[in-house]
Amino acid sequence: MTFLIPMPSSDTAAANRLDAFDAYRERMNERILQQGTHRGTKRFFNLDTTAYHDGALSGDTKELLGLVASMVLRCNDCIDYHLLQCVKAGYTDAELEDAMNVALVVGGSIVIPHLRHAVETLDLARAREESTE
Amino acid sequence: MTFLIPMPSSDTAAANRLDAFDAYRERMNERILQQGTHRGTKRFFNLDTTAYHDGALSGDTKELLGLVASMVLRCNDCIDYHLLQCVKAGYTDAELEDAMNVALVVGGSIVIPHLRHAVETLDLARAREESTE
Amino acid sequence: MTFLIPMPSSDTAAANRLDAFDAYRERMNERILQQGTHRGTKRFFNLDTTAYHDGALSGDTKELLGLVASMVLRCNDCIDYHLLQCVKAGYTDAELEDAMNVALVVGGSIVIPHLRHAVETLDLARAREESTE
Amino acid sequence: MTFLIPMPSSDTAAANRLDAFDAYRERMNERILQQGTHRGTKRFFNLDTTAYHDGALSGDTKELLGLVASMVLRCNDCIDYHLLQCVKAGYTDAELEDAMNVALVVGGSIVIPHLRHAVETLDLARAREESTE
Amino acid sequence: MTFLIPMPSSDTAAANRLDAFDAYRERMNERILQQGTHRGTKRFFNLDTTAYHDGALSGDTKELLGLVASMVLRCNDCIDYHLLQCVKAGYTDAELEDAMNVALVVGGSIVIPHLRHAVETLDLARAREESTE
Amino acid sequence: MTFLIPMPSSDTAAANRLDAFDAYRERMNERILQQGTHRGTKRFFNLDTTAYHDGALSGDTKELLGLVASMVLRCNDCIDYHLLQCVKAGYTDAELEDAMNVALVVGGSIVIPHLRHAVETLDLARAREESTE
Repeated sequence: MTFLIPMPSSDTAAANRLDAFDAYRERMNERILQQGTHRGTKRFFNLDTTAYHDGALSGDTKELLGLVASMVLRCNDCIDYHLLQCVKAGYTDAELEDAMNVALVVGGSIVIPHLRHAVETLDLARAREESTE
Repeated sequence: MTFLIPMPSSDTAAANRLDAFDAYRERMNERILQQGTHRGTKRFFNLDTTAYHDGALSGDTKELLGLVASMVLRCNDCIDYHLLQCVKAGYTDAELEDAMNVALVVGGSIVIPHLRHAVETLDLARAREESTE
Repeated sequence: MTFLIPMPSSDTAAANRLDAFDAYRERMNERILQQGTHRGTKRFFNLDTTAYHDGALSGDTKELLGLVASMVLRCNDCIDYHLLQCVKAGYTDAELEDAMNVALVVGGSIVIPHLRHAVETLDLARAREESTE
Repeated sequence: MTFLIPMPSSDTAAANRLDAFDAYRERMNERILQQGTHRGTKRFFNLDTTAYHDGALSGDTKELLGLVASMVLRCNDCIDYHLLQCVKAGYTDAELEDAMNVALVVGGSIVIPHLRHAVETLDLARAREESTE
Repeated sequence: MTFLIPMPSSDTAAANRLDAFDAYRERMNERILQQGTHRGTKRFFNLDTTAYHDGALSGDTKELLGLVASMVLRCNDCIDYHLLQCVKAGYTDAELEDAMNVALVVGGSIVIPHLRHAVETLDLARAREESTE
Repeated sequence: MTFLIPMPSSDTAAANRLDAFDAYRERMNERILQQGTHRGTKRFFNLDTTAYHDGALSGDTKELLGLVASMVLRCNDCIDYHLLQCVKAGYTDAELEDAMNVALVVGGSIVIPHLRHAVETLDLARAREESTE
């Protein structure tokens, strides 16, 4: 039902997609977690955050697991979140493409639209990195 | 592939998301059901409507079932539809949050983007209720 | 890959399916939760149990939500667990069939094999109830 | 939780898997549809049957659609049912393999266990055909 | 998280949705497949294309299989792609509605938002056909 | 539809589950890949194997990705395959539990029956390792 808008060509507009995502995510998480929220939901959010902390496996490895899980389950918001964490963790493009290839083979061609989205997000993230330097 | 637009801050714009959803849904359902439509599809729509009528369980209880089913299957349009029905049925925010917590625990963190969407829809629905009074 | 074995006709054998399920479930949960288990996993199991306790909604209502979520996600073990809880909660067959009908309409014909399984589980549970009385 | 049993080597035992499936399916469908069943569920079963009757597309073409839908949704019982219908409809092995290849590419390697199951079912169905001649 | 925009009423705007989809898809596929891409991913894209070429089944039949697989897996971009291929292949509206009805019955009411999307795409594709003539 | 059999208590019987899985998998893969198989399917199997070879990421890391993808997609046969590969790769129980915890949090309680299965497989694999030494 969403109306498809051609991607903006300028880098500014492009970076805005990531910034809009960050802002919306933060705003809604605050809305969900503040003011007398359901205790179970609050604890779930905690558990979710903790799952990616260093443990028997490094947090960085687990972000990669989160990325692949998000791709095969085909959730763009989850892909964006874990991809941005993976970029922060210092993975190279080649490493991320190798992980995304596993997701593509496991999940099949139905994953392709999400691969397009992920590659676009990666490009935007790299551009944002450069413009911040 | 959809371009993410930051949520409008004004209540007017916010209410528009629900109104746009209602209008699109109604227009396309009419398009699907009018003019010599596939008979099986027409009967399916009927069956779908009837499933939420009072039966051995009340219609209100079944709207709650529809909401949780929509959340674990991660369909925003379905979530919006059942959530608006639940608001009409008179469920409190606390009750809806308790139901959504079941969906979160059953479906996992992949449900979180849809929980954000649902909470936003709920806020918009409450705002629309107030502005209509 | 599992080999399909025709259902036993005797009530004794039938009841064994439920007993075997209970025993396996209990044994593996103990295995997972004992002896230095992953702390996050332990907390998840806790969260899962708590989600069905009385809250803004009654625990019984939430078992019904769990049943429908399990059916549309097509997990027989989850269906069996929540169905047995629903039987304990005192739901009638008509009420459970009404809930399962919502799951069928939301999830489509792909749910039918799980509906067969659920109805069989329900019959076994009723037979076990009677034989215990 | 099911215990994996190595496939029987004899043709007799093999054919039993199909016969057991047919018998169970028929028995449970009767159980579901008889004796005061939920009216919506009864109508859903009707709608499901009718969907594969000749219409704008032939029933045979729609059985092929049902097979591919069952494979990408990864439901062995649904695969078996539609595969047996496709065999009755006269599709060759090459045609069925071509359809299953579409399912494999769309659904990815997660479909492979179901492809194994489907190929085994097809072999059993061909063997049963021959033994009946 | 996407913001829902009411569908444009003019045919020009409407056709733009399809054109924007085509342009985005082509641009991102080029981005993915050019310049030292992951070899496995490149081969997957090839395999995906080849799956819909004439084989034991005609390419046209397999596009119909792709459409139904995309609907039950609920992927709008995949639906649009296969639907446009089906229109090119010369299927009538009645035939496509018959295929989509199978997807609806197999996948359930959770497919309905994607059916709305598909019917809209079909209408836009027919309008684009006419305006090109 | 499968009949649930209580797990055998002896180590011998237990190891048989893994051996039966290996044997069935090998036999069916040979059946699928030999004798004039669909060329696309053959190439898909190749692509699938290659995806877990050393690349920008190590093969071992990608087996872990495969395990988590299999768990969130809830496929026991896929879980068993990747878990056995992970055991061969030398991962400790703590590392595998940490990866499985990510799958549990992403995929929710619906993953729990597959976690039970995975933990059982891991125990059987460790027992088989010891008995071979």
